[in-house]
Formats: sequence, C-alpha cells, structure tokens
Amino acid sequence: MPGTLTHNAYGKSQVRLTKVIRHPDRHELKELDVAIQLEGDFEASYLRGDNSRVVATDTMKNIVYVLARKEPLTDLESFGKALGGHFLGQYVHVRAAVVRLTEQPWQRLSVAGVEHPHAFIGGGPEKRTCTVSLTRDQQQIESGLEGLLLLKTTNSAFRGYIQDQYTTLPETDDRLLATELTASWQYGTNEADWNGCHALIRRTLLEVFAGHRSQSVQQTLYAMAAAALEACLAVEEITLTMPNKHRLLVNLRPFGLDNANELFVPIDEPYGLITGTVRRGGSDSVGE
Amino acid sequence: MPGTLTHNAYGKSQVRLTKVIRHPDRHELKELDVAIQLEGDFEASYLRGDNSRVVATDTMKNIVYVLARKEPLTDLESFGKALGGHFLGQYVHVRAAVVRLTEQPWQRLSVAGVEHPHAFIGGGPEKRTCTVSLTRDQQQIESGLEGLLLLKTTNSAFRGYIQDQYTTLPETDDRLLATELTASWQYGTNEADWNGCHALIRRTLLEVFAGHRSQSVQQTLYAMAAAALEACLAVEEITLTMPNKHRLLVNLRPFGLDNANELFVPIDEPYGLITGTVRRGGSDSVGE
Amino acid sequence: MPGTLTHNAYGKSQVRLTKVIRHPDRHELKELDVAIQLEGDFEASYLRGDNSRVVATDTMKNIVYVLARKEPLTDLESFGKALGGHFLGQYVHVRAAVVRLTEQPWQRLSVAGVEHPHAFIGGGPEKRTCTVSLTRDQQQIESGLEGLLLLKTTNSAFRGYIQDQYTTLPETDDRLLATELTASWQYGTNEADWNGCHALIRRTLLEVFAGHRSQSVQQTLYAMAAAALEACLAVEEITLTMPNKHRLLVNLRPFGLDNANELFVPIDEPYGLITGTVRRGGSDSVGE
Amino acid sequence: MPGTLTHNAYGKSQVRLTKVIRHPDRHELKELDVAIQLEGDFEASYLRGDNSRVVATDTMKNIVYVLARKEPLTDLESFGKALGGHFLGQYVHVRAAVVRLTEQPWQRLSVAGVEHPHAFIGGGPEKRTCTVSLTRDQQQIESGLEGLLLLKTTNSAFRGYIQDQYTTLPETDDRLLATELTASWQYGTNEADWNGCHALIRRTLLEVFAGHRSQSVQQTLYAMAAAALEACLAVEEITLTMPNKHRLLVNLRPFGLDNANELFVPIDEPYGLITGTVRRGGSDSVGE
Repeated sequence: MPGTLTHNAYGKSQVRLTKVIRHPDRHELKELDVAIQLEGDFEASYLRGDNSRVVATDTMKNIVYVLARKEPLTDLESFGKALGGHFLGQYVHVRAAVVRLTEQPWQRLSVAGVEHPHAFIGGGPEKRTCTVSLTRDQQQIESGLEGLLLLKTTNSAFRGYIQDQYTTLPETDDRLLATELTASWQYGTNEADWNGCHALIRRTLLEVFAGHRSQSVQQTLYAMAAAALEACLAVEEITLTMPNKHRLLVNLRPFGLDNANELFVPIDEPYGLITGTVRRGGSDSVGE
Repeated sequence: MPGTLTHNAYGKSQVRLTKVIRHPDRHELKELDVAIQLEGDFEASYLRGDNSRVVATDTMKNIVYVLARKEPLTDLESFGKALGGHFLGQYVHVRAAVVRLTEQPWQRLSVAGVEHPHAFIGGGPEKRTCTVSLTRDQQQIESGLEGLLLLKTTNSAFRGYIQDQYTTLPETDDRLLATELTASWQYGTNEADWNGCHALIRRTLLEVFAGHRSQSVQQTLYAMAAAALEACLAVEEITLTMPNKHRLLVNLRPFGLDNANELFVPIDEPYGLITGTVRRGGSDSVGE
Repeated sequence: MPGTLTHNAYGKSQVRLTKVIRHPDRHELKELDVAIQLEGDFEASYLRGDNSRVVATDTMKNIVYVLARKEPLTDLESFGKALGGHFLGQYVHVRAAVVRLTEQPWQRLSVAGVEHPHAFIGGGPEKRTCTVSLTRDQQQIESGLEGLLLLKTTNSAFRGYIQDQYTTLPETDDRLLATELTASWQYGTNEADWNGCHALIRRTLLEVFAGHRSQSVQQTLYAMAAAALEACLAVEEITLTMPNKHRLLVNLRPFGLDNANELFVPIDEPYGLITGTVRRGGSDSVGE
Repeated sequence: MPGTLTHNAYGKSQVRLTKVIRHPDRHELKELDVAIQLEGDFEASYLRGDNSRVVATDTMKNIVYVLARKEPLTDLESFGKALGGHFLGQYVHVRAAVVRLTEQPWQRLSVAGVEHPHAFIGGGPEKRTCTVSLTRDQQQIESGLEGLLLLKTTNSAFRGYIQDQYTTLPETDDRLLATELTASWQYGTNEADWNGCHALIRRTLLEVFAGHRSQSVQQTLYAMAAAALEACLAVEEITLTMPNKHRLLVNLRPFGLDNANELFVPIDEPYGLITGTVRRGGSDSVGE
C-alpha cells in the first residue's frame, strides 16, 4: 500500500432552493445555495469501494429539501444548525458536518412608494453567508457577507511606505478607495439574534468605511473590524478581506489637459489583497 | 482575388472610466464602459496592409478619456452623441460611428439615514445601457437596461398551450415567474430628458411586471412594452427580452410531505427565451 | 392600443445533451448545447394571453432529446437541419426556425500512446458552432468556431497609422499578436461534407495566422478569410472577428534593465475589436 | 482597544506576465499569473496607519517583473522559490512569503505536421499551479493542476450505499463518470525535476482515471492519488478534489423510446464534491 488516506471528506454542493412563505397579505421570498461536507467513517469507500457507509450525495440533496420544507428559514444560521444536526443525528458514523449557506439577495419591489405584496427585484452581488461546523462535541457558527462593493472618493491617503530600488508608486494624499468586501465573523454563542447581528455588523462596516480617514487599506480594515466587534457583543472574532480595486488617475497631459483627481481608469488586475483577523479582548504586545 | 471584403468595422471595446465630480458639499460618481466601432474607408488596411487611414484603437481610447474630461457625463446619451460626433468630425473618411455605453451602478451610501457626501455602494447586476449610432445623415439613440432580475410569487399562469405527443409540461394556474430583463428603446428624437425618460420607463416596466395577471411570459412582455410606450412619448419602439428563469416545484411525496407551492429549485438551464418588439402606433392586422 | 407588436420570437436555450455511441471496440462521445427560436403566428399569446398556438418551450426541449436519440449526431449541421425541419413540419403556423448548436470539445485520451476506447479529456475554450435558419422557402447553414486563442511572437508590425493630437501609441515592427478568434461561414449548399469542411477551414485559418507577415490585425484577418474561401469551395462567405488581446511591453528602465521584446503584460481590457466579412467573387470597386 | 489583531497578511494578486524566449530557430512562450502574500511585522499599519514597514503592493508587482526578466522561467517552482526568497532577503521584517503561480497553457501550433517556430494555440481550462511557502526556517513546495476535465463512458458503478427514508437515487452498474480534477502535491524536497514530476503525475492520474473499474468517485480518487505517489518518489503527499459532474440519463419513455445508456443531460448543479489526501507510507489502522 503506497499511501495512507490521511484526510477525506465529501458532500453535495450547489443545492439551490427557493422558499415562498404565503401570508394572507404578503409573500416572503428566500433563496439559498447549500453545500454540505461530511467527515466520518468513510475510508472503506475510498480504499475498497465498499459503499455500505456512504450517504449518497443525492440523498444529502433530498435531506436539504425535506428540512427546507419543515424549517422556517427565517435565518441562515438556524437552518444550518438544523441541517448539520440532522446528519450527525441520522448517521452515527458521521463525525463532522460542515454546512455552508449562501443567500441570493431579493428585495421587495415598491410600486408608487408602497411595498408590493409579491413582487421582488434581485439584489446586487452582495450575498449573505453562513458556515455551521458541527461535531458531536462542538458547534461553530460563522456568519458573513461577500461581494459588497464599496467606494469612497476622498479621505484615503497612502504614503510613508518603504522606498527602495523597486518602488515606483507615487505617494498620494487623496485617492479613490474601492473594495469588494468579504467579511466573516464567529459567534461565541449558539443562540443569538442572527438577523439582528448581521444587520448591525453590516451597518457598522459600512459606516466605518465611509467615515474613516484612511492612511491605508490595512488601517481602514482594522477600524472596521474593531468597530464590528464593539457593536455586536455576541461576536468573538471577525475576519475581513479587502482587495484594493484600483482606480488609476488618467494622464491627460499629452492632450494639454489637467486632471484634478477627476478622471480614473478602474482596473481589475493586478490588485492588492489585504486581510486581517481581529479577536475580542486586548493584547498589549500586538495591540500596541 | 478569391474574395470581396463586403463588410468591415473595427474599434475599441471595454474602455472603462470613473469620473468624480467634486461639489463643495458632495461628490458625484459615474462609472462607464465604452465600446466604439467605426465604419468607413478602411479597405486598404485589410487588403494591402496600408494603415494610412487607420485610426489606431489606442487613439480611440485616448479620445474617450479626453471627452470624458470635457463633457459633464450627466447622462450616457449625451456623452455617446459627443463621442460619435467627434469621430465623424475629426476623420472625414469615417462613415459611421457606433458608440455603446454601459454604466456600472453605484448608489450613495446612507449613514444613520443621511446620504453620505462621498461614499458609495455598488449596485446590482442591473446596468444602464445606451447605443448611439451616427452617420453623416442620421442619428439613432437607443437606451436601455440589462441584468434586471425580477420575480413574482403569484399571478402567473401558463395553460392552454399545444398538447401533442412531445408535451409533458403540466399546466399551472399559479407558478413563480422570474426573469432577467433586457430592455432597449429607440427614441424618435435627438434631444430628450434622457435621465427622466430612463427612470420613467424603468419604473413602468417594474410596475407592470408586478401588477400583471400573467397568462404567459409573452403576454406580460407585451403589456410591459406597451405601457412603456404609453408612459414616455419620446420613445418610438421598445424591445424586451425575457428569459424564463425557471423555479421548479420540488417533489416531496417520496418523503411523505406535501408542497403547497412553497419550495422550488431554481435552475439556470435550460431556459425559455421570449422576445418582442413593440412600435408606437396601431396596426389592426397585427394588433388584433 | 398604444403599440404594434412588430417582431416576436421565442424558444428554448441551453438545452444540453451528451450522446454516447457504443461501438464494440470503442465509444464515441458528443456533447452539445442547443438553442431554438421560432417565429410564426404567435401574436395572440402576446396580445391576448391566448396560448392555443404556443409550443411550450419545455416541449421544444423534449423534441431536442427525441431527435438526439434518433439522429446520428455525427455533425452539428445535419442535426440542426433535422431539428429545424421538425418544427416547420410539426407546426404549420411556424414560419421560421433558427437552431443554434454549440459543441463542447472532448478529445479521446491516449494512454501510453494508444487511444483509449472510452476515456476522454475536455478540450479548450474553442467550441464548434452551427446556426441553421429555416423557413418554408429557404435554408441557411452557417458553421463556425469561437473561443480559439491564437498568439504569435513575431512577424506582426503596426505602423503608418494616423498621427494626430490624440495619438500616443508608438509604432512597432515586432509585436506580439494574440487574438480569440470567432469565425462563421455560410455555405452555398445544403449538403456538404460538414466535418471535412470544418476541419479544412479551421486548419487554413491557423496556417495563415501563423505564416502571415502582419501589417495589422485587419490585414491578417482578410488574409485568413480569403484563404478559407479558397480552401473550401462550398463556402460562400466568411466573417471573422478578432479582438486584439494586447500584450504590453513591460518598462524595466526604472530598475536599470532592458527589455528586448521579452517580457509583456497581458491585459484583458481595453481591447481592439476587428471584424470583416469576405464573400466569394471579385469586386474591383471594393477589392481594389 | 476592543480587539486584538490576531492575524494579518497582504500582497498583490493577478500579476500577469508573458515571457518570450527568442532562440534563433524557435521561440518559447510562457504565460503566468502571480499572487504574493506576505506576513511579518505589519501590525503598525493596521493599528496606527504607520506605513513605514509596508512594502507597497505596487512594489511587489515591480519585483515580479524584475525577477521574471532575470530568471529563466523554465518551471513554476524555481520561479516561485526565487520570488519568495527575494522578499525574505530584501525585507528583514517579513516572516513568511507565499507565492502562488498559475500557468496559462499555450501549445505550439503545428502546420502541415511541422511544429511552428513562433505560433501558438491556447490550451484548455486546465492550468498548472504551484504554491511556494517560505519562512526563514522552512520551504514548502506544492505543485498541482486545476480545471482538468475528464469523462469516461463506462466502467463506473455506484451501488451498495445507504438506503433510508431520504434515498431516491437508483443504483447503477454503468454510469458516465465526469469530473473537473484539481490536484496538488507536496514535495519532500526542495530540488526536483519539477517539469518531469509534473508530467509524470499528470500522466499517472489520467491513466488510472481511464483504466479504473470504479465503484465510486471516492475509490477512483484514492486509486489515482496512490498511483501518483508510487510514480513520483519526490512527492510526499497528494490531495485530489473531484466534483461529480453529473450526466443524467434522459427519460424517453413518455415518447415511446428506450434509452440504452446513450443520451444524457449534463448538469452543473447540484454536484457531489469528493476530496481526499493520501500521504506516502502505510498505516494499518486507516489503510486497512
């Protein structure tokens, strides 16, 4: 036997569902993608083609729909806990279940200023996310968002960085700062006001991004993350990823024109990629 | 000579720009993609490698930036006219210029209910579009939108269609209707309130989609298009394209559960694709 | 009635299929996407919600599978003709059927230099395409390819173009020339060796691209198109679209290094977009 | 201080480059994407906006081009080591550098059976990858491939899995097995014949996929991984990820037709996702 199977996992991805809750006066709409990965006593399927302990991924898909029918789906987190718990409860040889949920954003249409009872408009690239990781001993609930495009047209500088023989970037006191924010945060509890916390953290991230006098993406990222922890006490740790979606000043001098920070070229690549994780609680050695 | 060059055109695509207009109290942000195609006396470049009449596509890109600096960019249509007109004015051997503009949607952030002066959030997949086609004799201005996701959870039926040996689709009185709307409309004028017309047509399309008691995507499409013509007299013709973004009812009977129009699977493919063009003015033969 | 329905069409898109032909000694694999659009007497569905003449798009999908089961699928063109003909034959109120076919490329795996009987490797982004347009009076068969990435590292110049106040591009005698070729050609016949013609035209396009001493993308495009017409007499007309997938020379002088046409940055945008259509037969006025 | 910065990293992504090596008789072409992430003494930039230790990501991009000019680029692994080593050598406060390289596949064109000296055709979705992770104490070189589409039309069964109240999937002795393989392997050495190893592992993976009598994706995955370890002694560990790109048998009974494993619908979602890591050396407890 040339090798040892040191890790294995499998599951079903991109299980999509739309749920409509039909109240008398209005309908609610929820649209999700679900991905499941299971770990457990599955080695025999890899090593000997013995499938007797394999839960078919098609069966996992069926379970998603059964639970989506039974559960209220008012938030991602509760549904993720129910799904993950089902796999651990149903199959004794499953050691760990990771459920990843991604919500497609739909917003209620307004017609003549009045919310429509059953018509919706698709939201932007921003998606709400949740990953529930369960074993028989532990629950970890991580919530987040991805694809949130943000741009500010002033109060962003970048100067004072290392100048050496490879440096050509000019320093600037006033640049455009744009990013596509990914955030994920871990709760220190298994019960929380999931929708309230999500809304609060999202609002805090937006407000700090807008109001911060940025010396770098790094500094703005930390300020956003720290403020989110301060806003929502149920959260223990938050990770932000902020690609620097560059807007480059156009050089109009060849055409006899100035460009007073007015006209830019957005470029997709290359891009700076800045990440940071902030955990509740001080630590003098790192924090200062 | 084995073949005759019967058509040729060339230009520059994906010229991206960001313009910031810095008022004392707030900034405005506009982000566009521009594509240009020119037709004219360019055969010699194709047939003999004689580039003496070729406007380099890099030069076209420069012209986009020069005009973006000079023009107010308050709407796509005026900028498209200015750009197209520039090519016809600058180069006598250019016969036709087609300028296609696509606007990336950014919305002003609100912080604590107050509009922020210089922070923005990226909009959804919906984009505003405009195509200006100019020759020395004619101007055609076509405006539109694309990527507008719409979904309604009731008031959509589909029945009474042809039943033959290839038909398996069950009739339904109440299905989910979802689409990703593309609309483009042609103006009968070269001067209009471009932003006002766009907002009016968009609002009309949304309202009719939401309120229509649909017997088919076709019927809803026509109702939307006809209402748009009625709402905005400057428009002569409108074309809508409405893919049917199917949501299929999940079969839960194998699991002993009903599904009262509650749980669906969204599928991306295959999809119905419905199009129609409606022109101002009646025609009994077709219209009835 | 505010508007007249001047054009309408509908159909099914992204009908995907995989066909395996199981010979005793080896299997053949074919994978296609099919899109159908019908025109005909469908106004009542748009204007009055009367679906009595509507062929459900789900039924169209079923017809694709029934014909895919019955037809040999040895080439796209015959299958497109069969499909389009079916709709005209089955439904008297259908005036025109357009069938668009796109083939996913799979290549037989070779193991130790021997072709494997039933294992395949997915091909590149290049896809074979075909559009069959049928009415009761006319057949038009257009074949083609898309997504064919080509690059040559020399024998491409670009100079002698218009120099004016908007020109900043330096002339060059030796640049990288890269494109993503889209080609489509129209046959002057309804019966041909479709696979043989496709292979011959593709080979001719590649050979001319590789061997041409290019003065511009335009010139190379015409040379390729003219050679394709010369190679395959069944073809009447060919259209090529060649985006200029720029590779920009990196400026290494700030770092004390030269760059003798060795190191480039590939950029996706903006890009030049060059098109041309060449038709069999001379025409002095345009061709000279 | 509400929170502690427990992790941070930043860098530049999507630095693209094309290198042409101009031999007298033929040119070589190499096209890469580079992503760099640095860890080190960067807290002050996050916490206080002090950029004095920040290497601008624009500078990182410059360094990529300088080294791409100087290094031969004959394989990804050596270039990754040189790049990562440069950051550790140049900046004493950098603790770790992770360099991720992705190669765009280009193949030399053949014209009339002869390899062309300077014309190339773009390869498929398969890309060669490499991640070099360096600290002052450790080097880890991981090589791999991604996007390799594979399909076999027989010798794939799936039966004997758990049957419970959520199971509806029928067992099968003969299904289509398709996947989009991602593989990555870690070397136990810092010097190896990188190109030779890559070719050998890739060939082994293909051959085992083609020849295996599969009882499940899991079993085929393990067989492929174990064979790769056996083929290339320089590799210590390999991880394979194999999504199950389902092809579903079309039900043609409603149309009075059979379907003898001949006609399938390829679907993109949902999909099974199977992963496994195999390490050199036996372990009776897990391996049997």
